Amino acid sequence: MSPNNCALLVVAHGSRRAASNDEVRQLAEVMAAKAGARFTMVVPAFLELATPSIPDGIEHCIQAGVSEVVVLPYFLSAGRHVAEDIPAEVDIKRLQYPHIPISIAAYLGSDEGVADLMLGLV
Amino acid sequence: MSPNNCALLVVAHGSRRAASNDEVRQLAEVMAAKAGARFTMVVPAFLELATPSIPDGIEHCIQAGVSEVVVLPYFLSAGRHVAEDIPAEVDIKRLQYPHIPISIAAYLGSDEGVADLMLGLV
Repeated sequence: MSPNNCALLVVAHGSRRAASNDEVRQLAEVMAAKAGARFTMVVPAFLELATPSIPDGIEHCIQAGVSEVVVLPYFLSAGRHVAEDIPAEVDIKRLQYPHIPISIAAYLGSDEGVADLMLGLV
Repeated sequence: MSPNNCALLVVAHGSRRAASNDEVRQLAEVMAAKAGARFTMVVPAFLELATPSIPDGIEHCIQAGVSEVVVLPYFLSAGRHVAEDIPAEVDIKRLQYPHIPISIAAYLGSDEGVADLMLGLV
């Protein structure tokens, strides 16, 4: 496996509303197209209320043969979900696959570009 | 009042966690600095769990003398909050101030730039 054989897991909260979960799945598809060769695959996953779960999403990537997984929280604030719940879910797979690096990137809301994006909407 | 005497109300869900609400208040400050003369003021407001509420935020802008208010949802998906709850809160003030245009812009998650911003985090 090459050093670039890396999967990107886009993690959203998950909603009882199917259309909201589909928005996340579509986002992952758009990101896959934009990422090009940077990531072998870009896969959506959900903390709650939708599938796949975070562990199942990571498992899917590992079974597809990647040598590394980056978890990217699609969240606006650094609350309990980002600080505790997502790391706890990721740790399940870190323990199971100690030889595969699984990192957690910064959450969307931490990016200074959000202010520009918001102003672009008005 | 000039035609550009417009307030921007950045509306977040609101959290029991004070630091998350402060993140939104800081975002509004950054947006105010970036917006320059486009908006007379950029003010945060919250649907639940934090203050000011949306009606109170709009009232604050109107009392400050603006002739127009744009409400911008800091939300990732078009769920019930964006589709129903925010418009219902805004309607309270539209009824009270029928001569002041109060519009609701698209929500953050609808912007295609989100995919690029997410990829910039990894």
